[in-house]
Amino acid sequence: MHLIVVGSGIVGSACALSATALGADVTIIESDRPGRATSAGAGIICPWSSRVEDPDWYTFSCAAARAYPALIDSLADVGETAVGYRRVGAMVLTDSADQQAKIAQHFAARRDASPEMGEIAALDPDQARELFPPLRPGYHAVHISGAARVDGRLISAAMRRAAGRAGATVIVGDARLHLTGGEVEGVIAGTQLIEADAVVAATGAWTNEFLAPAGLSIGITPQRGQIVHIGLGLTDTSRWPAILPSNSGHYMLAFDDSRVVAGATRETGSGFDYRVTPGGLAEVLRQALEVAPGLASGTYLETRIGFRPMGPDIRPLLGPVPGLEHLVIATGLGSSGLTMGPYAGEIAARCALGAELPVDLTPFSPVRP
Amino acid sequence: MHLIVVGSGIVGSACALSATALGADVTIIESDRPGRATSAGAGIICPWSSRVEDPDWYTFSCAAARAYPALIDSLADVGETAVGYRRVGAMVLTDSADQQAKIAQHFAARRDASPEMGEIAALDPDQARELFPPLRPGYHAVHISGAARVDGRLISAAMRRAAGRAGATVIVGDARLHLTGGEVEGVIAGTQLIEADAVVAATGAWTNEFLAPAGLSIGITPQRGQIVHIGLGLTDTSRWPAILPSNSGHYMLAFDDSRVVAGATRETGSGFDYRVTPGGLAEVLRQALEVAPGLASGTYLETRIGFRPMGPDIRPLLGPVPGLEHLVIATGLGSSGLTMGPYAGEIAARCALGAELPVDLTPFSPVRP
Amino acid sequence: MHLIVVGSGIVGSACALSATALGADVTIIESDRPGRATSAGAGIICPWSSRVEDPDWYTFSCAAARAYPALIDSLADVGETAVGYRRVGAMVLTDSADQQAKIAQHFAARRDASPEMGEIAALDPDQARELFPPLRPGYHAVHISGAARVDGRLISAAMRRAAGRAGATVIVGDARLHLTGGEVEGVIAGTQLIEADAVVAATGAWTNEFLAPAGLSIGITPQRGQIVHIGLGLTDTSRWPAILPSNSGHYMLAFDDSRVVAGATRETGSGFDYRVTPGGLAEVLRQALEVAPGLASGTYLETRIGFRPMGPDIRPLLGPVPGLEHLVIATGLGSSGLTMGPYAGEIAARCALGAELPVDLTPFSPVRP
Amino acid sequence: MHLIVVGSGIVGSACALSATALGADVTIIESDRPGRATSAGAGIICPWSSRVEDPDWYTFSCAAARAYPALIDSLADVGETAVGYRRVGAMVLTDSADQQAKIAQHFAARRDASPEMGEIAALDPDQARELFPPLRPGYHAVHISGAARVDGRLISAAMRRAAGRAGATVIVGDARLHLTGGEVEGVIAGTQLIEADAVVAATGAWTNEFLAPAGLSIGITPQRGQIVHIGLGLTDTSRWPAILPSNSGHYMLAFDDSRVVAGATRETGSGFDYRVTPGGLAEVLRQALEVAPGLASGTYLETRIGFRPMGPDIRPLLGPVPGLEHLVIATGLGSSGLTMGPYAGEIAARCALGAELPVDLTPFSPVRP
Repeated sequence: MHLIVVGSGIVGSACALSATALGADVTIIESDRPGRATSAGAGIICPWSSRVEDPDWYTFSCAAARAYPALIDSLADVGETAVGYRRVGAMVLTDSADQQAKIAQHFAARRDASPEMGEIAALDPDQARELFPPLRPGYHAVHISGAARVDGRLISAAMRRAAGRAGATVIVGDARLHLTGGEVEGVIAGTQLIEADAVVAATGAWTNEFLAPAGLSIGITPQRGQIVHIGLGLTDTSRWPAILPSNSGHYMLAFDDSRVVAGATRETGSGFDYRVTPGGLAEVLRQALEVAPGLASGTYLETRIGFRPMGPDIRPLLGPVPGLEHLVIATGLGSSGLTMGPYAGEIAARCALGAELPVDLTPFSPVRP
Repeated sequence: MHLIVVGSGIVGSACALSATALGADVTIIESDRPGRATSAGAGIICPWSSRVEDPDWYTFSCAAARAYPALIDSLADVGETAVGYRRVGAMVLTDSADQQAKIAQHFAARRDASPEMGEIAALDPDQARELFPPLRPGYHAVHISGAARVDGRLISAAMRRAAGRAGATVIVGDARLHLTGGEVEGVIAGTQLIEADAVVAATGAWTNEFLAPAGLSIGITPQRGQIVHIGLGLTDTSRWPAILPSNSGHYMLAFDDSRVVAGATRETGSGFDYRVTPGGLAEVLRQALEVAPGLASGTYLETRIGFRPMGPDIRPLLGPVPGLEHLVIATGLGSSGLTMGPYAGEIAARCALGAELPVDLTPFSPVRP
Repeated sequence: MHLIVVGSGIVGSACALSATALGADVTIIESDRPGRATSAGAGIICPWSSRVEDPDWYTFSCAAARAYPALIDSLADVGETAVGYRRVGAMVLTDSADQQAKIAQHFAARRDASPEMGEIAALDPDQARELFPPLRPGYHAVHISGAARVDGRLISAAMRRAAGRAGATVIVGDARLHLTGGEVEGVIAGTQLIEADAVVAATGAWTNEFLAPAGLSIGITPQRGQIVHIGLGLTDTSRWPAILPSNSGHYMLAFDDSRVVAGATRETGSGFDYRVTPGGLAEVLRQALEVAPGLASGTYLETRIGFRPMGPDIRPLLGPVPGLEHLVIATGLGSSGLTMGPYAGEIAARCALGAELPVDLTPFSPVRP
Repeated sequence: MHLIVVGSGIVGSACALSATALGADVTIIESDRPGRATSAGAGIICPWSSRVEDPDWYTFSCAAARAYPALIDSLADVGETAVGYRRVGAMVLTDSADQQAKIAQHFAARRDASPEMGEIAALDPDQARELFPPLRPGYHAVHISGAARVDGRLISAAMRRAAGRAGATVIVGDARLHLTGGEVEGVIAGTQLIEADAVVAATGAWTNEFLAPAGLSIGITPQRGQIVHIGLGLTDTSRWPAILPSNSGHYMLAFDDSRVVAGATRETGSGFDYRVTPGGLAEVLRQALEVAPGLASGTYLETRIGFRPMGPDIRPLLGPVPGLEHLVIATGLGSSGLTMGPYAGEIAARCALGAELPVDLTPFSPVRP
């Protein structure tokens, strides 16, 4: 069976890797545009601390987080160890010891269903600063030891390479869905028609452009995120936990190379406007320095830009399109792409190949109203 | 007479150009280090609006501003028209109409002595925004039509080129003062001794390093400035006035190429630490967006860094060093370098060559306590 | 009369400026894409040395060169002096004194019709190196004193600004021709319809994309040029002549800021592939260092990329499209865009506005076979 | 015992890591200057193919190569898996099948003493291009399966981090040796004196500057290397072998991220002139495209610059300085730094701490004539 996977961000590369493991003959088509959410993204794998109240989203996210360590191990088995993944833990910050206690209790209650959360610990301000020295003094923290961070650019490339070595073909080019008489027949990549038994659209924020030949438009729009990278000389930041202020959607995480990443704007309505703006930069810096004033004297390195694929609600758009055989859509992961991506990609592969699914996709229908 | 000018920032290049005009045989030595204040600087020539209360400083600044148009004309005469200079005016901003009236009155009083200020006009908020559209609504402005802006990098290069075509030699290399038996004999450039009848140290923040062989240390320290450049698409910003908020040391100006420059930090104690910092960037952006929120959706282009040479007080360090013949120092212009630099350079040349001086240098003694 | 000019490269901006002078109400639409030929280009205005044998091309080029000084003056009159233009002369190089004599004779013969060529001088190798020191010893040169160089990015921006101050409106966005019932009605910019009495397509290599709604495709394709910029410290390169080896299509020129530009690849069939390639870079560097080995120890600064609009032959595509009223096409200037652009733009404006033309456009028909 | 290690390139970071393992209290001082050889370098670990005829060098290199896998494993054990290391093999290229046979025989003869060379295989041109597709057709290759490549920047940072977590302190600053009465007492870092029982100078090309306070100058000079990075879209280059043309000192290797690195110039006498030059770039590109013309249409990414520490001959400068107790020098690895660095660092640590040495250091005396 020949499967085309369009897009090789975190969803598409995971899908392609899963599909080769399931025995499919796989072609990956990647347009390699600037602004791919995966490439800009700095991933914190910690769904348990989320304030999202949608139970379908939460269950899906937790399953995705649970599946991560096995993915990392399987990539290591095929020689892919440089994926920026480390189980560094996360700290949810609050100004009040009272709120800290409530948060810790809330997390503890979630832990029964998610033992992979690891230890939940209430840290006093000094302990919190020991783990993440630039923090403003006075923050109480709840530490979740099982949280991890990952580099989206590295892990998606590693999965794509692994898929390639397992037999997948990679083509670079713009892709459009191809139909004949209303039937999905394959994909036009550049000017070349590639036929397939099934197509997975892991096309992120660009999904509607890909689907246009089918006269189909789903509820996906790009949301720009601007993400600031800050260097800290030769400081060993490799074990610093992810930082999740309890009162904001901004966050921080650190990579091995003495670098802290602070994100991110959530610019709904941005379109595909690939620019760093004074307003975005000021917002991210203000939030980061409010939480971690110790970063003020670091080195500004760069700002990355990604266009998150935002659906009509918080849940992914994942599954088949009724009435349009041989097509599976896998997008809409919003700001949780690096957590949910590998799992969503695997499900998309199974769905396209007719394998058993670990989850009911009804709540994730890509054409839900 | 052979004159060595060390440094070819705005002071040194002006000095070299003046000295060739006075008939000297000139050698310019330039170390071309990152962080030269002239290269980073965005110059607003508008001393009349300053809140500095030192009369020597004010008189000197006004004379420097008065001399600018003739310099620009003389550069044009030798084919140097691309110096980033334009008499665009400046707007001093205030939130209150009362304060606006006081400011306007204050400026009007200064205008008798400085007719080159041009027209003083009180603008209402709409008029102000017409001239500088990104401004926050509500600012009252006092407009000074004679103010100008200049690009430090371009004008200093133009003067250096003009000096070169008038006979000056340019050498690239690190320079140290050279003395024999306590007498200034010339300069060591790299490993080469260059003898001269006189030496002008236009060495900016690096002056003490240059003077070390004389056992001399003057009161100069580097003060880092971070300056943000913002693109505005294809907007014609070439005639936008400089912006001087009355309640802050920050400022803005615009160049021809759809670019607004917002500055600057004043980081005393920075040393020569050539880095863009999250703290500095956040400060400059916050101040700029507070004054001109319309810049928020522009394009962040770059941040430039300059080390201002700061003296013990606001006045330049300009003139001979008692007891050390054949040496003239010309530095310490702080954040007014692009206003005062050409004039200070000319005076340094005259001083070194024994020509008549337009001003008494006593208050500017480089070794004043 | 309302004229839309699509594109604000050198042709479009000149067209807009001319049209405002002719009294039209002008709207400029610019998509501001990477790879505009004007922005990458380093212009040598010296058609008289060309080996092109097409008399229509030659006559047109010479007229364009002749018109340049007046354009520069008129821009200076409205305060636009920073356009990178200087009449620095050009040197055609050859290894043989015999060939030098022939070349000089050939140029002398052309000079009667084109007195603006200035002086024609045969220089021996030492003289040639005095004017352009990095040259390989041994080159005989024929010097044409009337040749000039210009910075495409600067002069087109200056003309656009001048047009703007003369009343033209500038809109940023992708543009498509709009027709109703086969009649040109205006342009869709982004999603907005702008109606006009006439439209000039100064759309360079992207012309067919713009014309698509008319079902029209003309013989224009993009040809990639890679152009290398080399820094020379503080050397005054502002008066260095343009370099035209007689046995290659490569060239060199210098700008004021101690910079030599070496160009360029001519990559037919490149499409719009905006990348610097090892092959292109190696070719340009090899050619430049063969001619001027003294550049080897300079500083590599950057490589710019432009997509030249190449027509079916050497002549511009300039004029109306029979059967499609209210549309004028002005493109296809190939590698002579910065020489012919302002003149072609002015003619396009006159053509669109029904003013008298200085030249018969028949040989330049944009739909010639 | 307190050991100061000056420099945290590959030698210094390995030294610090070894010293912590040996129980020392370690301080690392790093000046973090541009042009560190380790940071620019692309390491090929394949001493067996060298044409160097110095037996001490060869024995040392082979021992260094033999020790690499255990180092990689030990780093993985402490969570440092992203070091750019992969045992990808190497191909020595030749135009002639005869020479291929001789080379293969030569390598086979070396293999008895160095079983870690892995398999030696003679590959025909098609086989060679299968492993490294951009190669020019016609090359005969000898493949050494045990060769590896490593990223100097990543592995030195990983060792420094591992040393830090094992107790070492990292200080950023310029360092000078400090002596009292002719005795090494420690190091001045910035303005701070740090005392120590022993000091290792892993100071690369900057060693003489560090040693100056001791009145000591050894035979080390900087040799600039310019190294070009070429992107290949989404091609999986992670398993491509290193390329060693038999008739040139240039080489190529590939990293995981679709990137080929081509090196390098060997610019003796360059001093610390941190610039990319047209001459250097042209040389590296010409050599690379001669061997692998398929790279011509890749994407030029960047050129890195490193200053190799070159000694008076091919051998490292490693060991104590007679008459100057408590000082060990470890530099002079030339273009083999990434092969020999970890081993040299370990020996320097053992030497400084008085532990048993695996090799007689006499031939490596840093003060040999």
